[in-house]
Amino acid sequence: MGTCTNGVMKQAILLTGGAGYVGSHTVAALLEDPVKSEQYDIVVIDNLVNAYRAPGQKKPEPLRIIEELTGKSVIFYDVNIADGAKLQEVFDKHSVHCVIHFAALKAVGESVEKPLEYYQNNITGTCTLLDTMRKNGVYNLIFSSSCTVYGDPERLPLDESHATGRGLSSPYARTKHYCETICEDLAVSDKKWSIISLRYFNPVGAHASGRIGEDPAGIPNNLMPYIAQVAVGRLPSLSVFGGDYPTPDGSGVRDYIHVADLAAGHARALALLPRPGFTAVNLGTGNGYSVLQMIAAFEKASGRKIPYKIVGRRAGDIAANYADVSLSHKLLGWSAKKTLDDMCADTWRWQSNNPNGFKKSS
Amino acid sequence: MGTCTNGVMKQAILLTGGAGYVGSHTVAALLEDPVKSEQYDIVVIDNLVNAYRAPGQKKPEPLRIIEELTGKSVIFYDVNIADGAKLQEVFDKHSVHCVIHFAALKAVGESVEKPLEYYQNNITGTCTLLDTMRKNGVYNLIFSSSCTVYGDPERLPLDESHATGRGLSSPYARTKHYCETICEDLAVSDKKWSIISLRYFNPVGAHASGRIGEDPAGIPNNLMPYIAQVAVGRLPSLSVFGGDYPTPDGSGVRDYIHVADLAAGHARALALLPRPGFTAVNLGTGNGYSVLQMIAAFEKASGRKIPYKIVGRRAGDIAANYADVSLSHKLLGWSAKKTLDDMCADTWRWQSNNPNGFKKSS
Repeated sequence: MGTCTNGVMKQAILLTGGAGYVGSHTVAALLEDPVKSEQYDIVVIDNLVNAYRAPGQKKPEPLRIIEELTGKSVIFYDVNIADGAKLQEVFDKHSVHCVIHFAALKAVGESVEKPLEYYQNNITGTCTLLDTMRKNGVYNLIFSSSCTVYGDPERLPLDESHATGRGLSSPYARTKHYCETICEDLAVSDKKWSIISLRYFNPVGAHASGRIGEDPAGIPNNLMPYIAQVAVGRLPSLSVFGGDYPTPDGSGVRDYIHVADLAAGHARALALLPRPGFTAVNLGTGNGYSVLQMIAAFEKASGRKIPYKIVGRRAGDIAANYADVSLSHKLLGWSAKKTLDDMCADTWRWQSNNPNGFKKSS
Repeated sequence: MGTCTNGVMKQAILLTGGAGYVGSHTVAALLEDPVKSEQYDIVVIDNLVNAYRAPGQKKPEPLRIIEELTGKSVIFYDVNIADGAKLQEVFDKHSVHCVIHFAALKAVGESVEKPLEYYQNNITGTCTLLDTMRKNGVYNLIFSSSCTVYGDPERLPLDESHATGRGLSSPYARTKHYCETICEDLAVSDKKWSIISLRYFNPVGAHASGRIGEDPAGIPNNLMPYIAQVAVGRLPSLSVFGGDYPTPDGSGVRDYIHVADLAAGHARALALLPRPGFTAVNLGTGNGYSVLQMIAAFEKASGRKIPYKIVGRRAGDIAANYADVSLSHKLLGWSAKKTLDDMCADTWRWQSNNPNGFKKSS
């Protein structure tokens, strides 16, 4: 049930998938903000498919730790967004001001193996969420999108007017693009909707406390957690996919962005609402770093050697991408503050303090 | 429950949306085929959103009439494909050989007004159907696609290798394209799937009996039923959208195909299964006719004058499209037999015998 201030029920920010990597860092950013945490109840729903809840605990570890760190509380529901009836119960209990929709399956490789699961979770889930929002008169949405919607770049840096949906390399990328078009069509059909789609570049890093961070199940799909697990000795060595790309050192170039910056971007997007229509905004730093640069930076931050081997390109990977960040500056008054060294240092603090992630023994 | 021949339970062809326009004509074609109607139970599920069931009747009118015409029976379930539990009950009762998946919302203009309904019905529904098929070990699918997946043609005639998904003009078109990619990703992920996507051009015409035909709810979205309703006096006159297209007479050109030819195409696709993978095949005549040619042909067939007025272009409409039909010849051994005069004569027979469609009085 929502909480009250001076007898008035607070409005809620509802974060779907709020126990996940970007979700939990956004929860932390909202609670660390004295104005927002006073103004809103922070409500998380998560089906715990990619978040760990310790035995005997009611809340998943990232949220429990954020409560410890901030001394403030998060309201948590173990709910799948595709379950319309359960979702409605959450809307019954809270006066939702805005939904920040993180919940999705997100492993590119897995999406090729299990496409139907990705379409069902990501698209059906989003449709059910949008339908439930509309039934409850909630029209403010911040959607977790991805730079993968741009496909193989026609030009760099990637600005928001670059074509989307062409040459998408995986079912995962398609689900993100399709959800964007669903949101856009919806905003065209009904002027009540305010939808901001945040196109993330490559989120890395961890909370400054070193107590929450990225905790992928199984072998990591993304570079940074892979490097971190090699550094901490959990994995033996790193394969660098492709050393012959048309980039300065031949390895792939991406725009890595610190998750705390990304979380701050969500808080700024929240302040922009309502903004009628559909608005896509890149969240990146505007700088591209190569895989080899990332390895070097991580070796410096961790003081550990990262053994690696350059192997063949991976199907569907592109040579380089990085963001044009001018729209995020202009619209959100936001820009990434953290450096590559911050990203590596924070990742290393998290990984070395928690070699097995949130699960203490494994 | 499935029926038996010589003590063996027959396999079933399951037609979703089998009480609709193309669906019911395909039911008729399968029952009129002495071999297929002997070999298979014909099972239809339909949620009756776009099909009429007369008071006191168990079956919707098109199916009831087809049973009368053929003396053979159709098994009917009033089920929405998005209802996984109900769908499972149908799979429990029948040994399904193949699903022919017609069920979808299909009005382009309405899809702009109600996009979420289109995404939920067409995509969520298709995902639920695919998931249920897989759970029951049924991997043969014929999918009702559309030439709208090609967007604004880069070249004519449109062959199956033409890019899809670019510049799609409506949520309806997007749902068809997205369902195709879902099917294709699924077929890539698991070699057990045999999926044939039939890309219809513009279905028109009616059953030769004049007793079943297209029966749109409300004002027709498509040209032919609109012309027919003007001819029969149900609508006063026709607006021709655009007289300045780069076509021989300035009006838009489409590849109209007789629904009986289309139905025969489905029967041929059925014979091709199993064909592992995802295969898209155009079903068209390969000939383009303009709106003004259609009006003239219908005036000739009906002996009635069709009052019309040329007005501005309609947003999202393209100048011309028509099919390259060589793949349908090669793969299915199929080609359209009916002429434009047949299309008009059969439409007129249906419309003049049934001025209010299946509902006798309105």
